[in-house]
Amino acid sequence: MYKVKVYVTLRESVLDPQGVAVKDALHTMDYAEVADVRIGKYLELQLEDVANVDERVKEMCEKLLANTVIEDYRFDVEEVVPS
Amino acid sequence: MYKVKVYVTLRESVLDPQGVAVKDALHTMDYAEVADVRIGKYLELQLEDVANVDERVKEMCEKLLANTVIEDYRFDVEEVVPS
Repeated sequence: MYKVKVYVTLRESVLDPQGVAVKDALHTMDYAEVADVRIGKYLELQLEDVANVDERVKEMCEKLLANTVIEDYRFDVEEVVPS
Repeated sequence: MYKVKVYVTLRESVLDPQGVAVKDALHTMDYAEVADVRIGKYLELQLEDVANVDERVKEMCEKLLANTVIEDYRFDVEEVVPS
């Protein structure tokens, strides 16, 4: 069994209107120290045992979990030993 | 300057329809090994220097970044030394 953490973020070159909106809201709430906010997706996947898990997770990201035109992704794979 | 990474996830007890939809899509794409998918938010904040940064980030999460009725949050604070 594997636990996979996937982080999908907008590319630096892509404007993040949602991030701008959150930054403005935080400023309104007197958190003036906030200089920038970027918002992305965080996914936790549980996978049954499978060969070449890294390759398959990369495929899942490329095909479905991330829009690689405007998003970057990275992931961590952790083997879960049944207790 | 601080770089803060915030992870907002649905509580275990809360149904994640979006996660179920992604899991079903991955199964359709022959990734049968996917047992579960949970989808959350990943935020990257850049903060100017401020006292009690952890306390203030906690407040930001409680007040705006997470809906604490149905979501959990955790964050990592990293001091960024100007190069």
